[in-house]
Amino acid sequence: MRTVRFRDPAGATRTGEWTSTGIEAAGQVYDPETVEVLPPAEPTKIIAIGLNYADHAAERDSEIPDRPLLFLKTPNTVASHGDTITLPAAKERVDYEAEFGVVIGEQARNVSEADVWDVVAGFTAVNDVSNRDDQDREQNWIRGKAFDGAAPMGPVVADPQDVPADASIELRVNGEVKQSSSRAEFIFSVPELVAEITSYMTLEPGDVISTGTPAGVGPLSDGDHVEIEIEGVGTLEHDVVQG
Amino acid sequence: MRTVRFRDPAGATRTGEWTSTGIEAAGQVYDPETVEVLPPAEPTKIIAIGLNYADHAAERDSEIPDRPLLFLKTPNTVASHGDTITLPAAKERVDYEAEFGVVIGEQARNVSEADVWDVVAGFTAVNDVSNRDDQDREQNWIRGKAFDGAAPMGPVVADPQDVPADASIELRVNGEVKQSSSRAEFIFSVPELVAEITSYMTLEPGDVISTGTPAGVGPLSDGDHVEIEIEGVGTLEHDVVQG
Repeated sequence: MRTVRFRDPAGATRTGEWTSTGIEAAGQVYDPETVEVLPPAEPTKIIAIGLNYADHAAERDSEIPDRPLLFLKTPNTVASHGDTITLPAAKERVDYEAEFGVVIGEQARNVSEADVWDVVAGFTAVNDVSNRDDQDREQNWIRGKAFDGAAPMGPVVADPQDVPADASIELRVNGEVKQSSSRAEFIFSVPELVAEITSYMTLEPGDVISTGTPAGVGPLSDGDHVEIEIEGVGTLEHDVVQG
Repeated sequence: MRTVRFRDPAGATRTGEWTSTGIEAAGQVYDPETVEVLPPAEPTKIIAIGLNYADHAAERDSEIPDRPLLFLKTPNTVASHGDTITLPAAKERVDYEAEFGVVIGEQARNVSEADVWDVVAGFTAVNDVSNRDDQDREQNWIRGKAFDGAAPMGPVVADPQDVPADASIELRVNGEVKQSSSRAEFIFSVPELVAEITSYMTLEPGDVISTGTPAGVGPLSDGDHVEIEIEGVGTLEHDVVQG
């Protein structure tokens, strides 16, 4: 089951199921190309994970952390499947980062690893767009990671049971494969991440954990078309313009 | 004019004016001691500023930054005037930090310094409660600054014109003065902060900028009663228990 939030041709916000025939909602079937796909959730916060694949830690010249490296992306970063995001102006390098997103389904605090799947609604795809010019100069990655549009996500929330433990993740820019890895490569698992985060903070329904990116990050530029395909989830697509 | 959000004795959420006679709303006057004061805003994000007073930079052994040091406090950090916040368990040191809070009144993006007061609703008091054990080990201060209850704020939003440019700020723990300074000591002014932040991100109504703390930060412990008094705003009070 893959759930999608969308605006139908009459303008109503609906939740439907994305199937092989289209988007099914309230007895109708819509063509995904004719509706406006909305963000899969309305997070009050996005908790993002740094360096959760050993190969990406190596390419960023960073050590593998002894506990999850956390950072934040704010609600203003959310963009949808089908959106065109604007890169911050006058930066040398703004990168794509393909990530598995975990969408929270229930309010969660002090969740044990054994109980984590009770509070998870499912998986989505996230592009953790990263402005390296500022990130590399900041203690906290705010200008680097929390600018408007820095978190395209979607198009669906997929049931955890439909996403294999070794689900593949692939990012393409203008059709060319740039990142290709699998959830099996995580340093910290989803249960470990949720347990750690909820030992400090309450997660709300719709909050998103973006679980880190594999090797192969690289720059975005004006006119790029980005696709992030996750096995069992589907393909998030968005465009890029230079600001 | 000092605006307060509160729950009246019947349970309704109201907005009133905090005057010398009490809280006035809809032709009634309520005793502030008999109502539940709510957070002065419902931020989608709190942008906090590090090291915005030279004396605090010195006590943290940090250089004065060449542009504002930004970090984030998430919506789960919000606590109200009158609340009892729970310190994270098993930490050596969790500090108070008295701050001027700037509450945003209008959606704001790319605001020039000259236009900043058009988008500001007013000032409140914020305690930027800081878990140093984790902050000192983290790249991004999430466990350190974004745990539940880490941002008591209130009790009112005061009109900017009622808060002098050199308004005093004082923090007391159990009646003893611990921090005492003035807005005149800011390294970066409110217009500079809003202009810089909105060059990267959209601020929404209710978002809060917490403008940094002066010298005198120190530890909180079980049973402490904290007061933050800001000239023209009033006094935020909250209690502390050890988790």
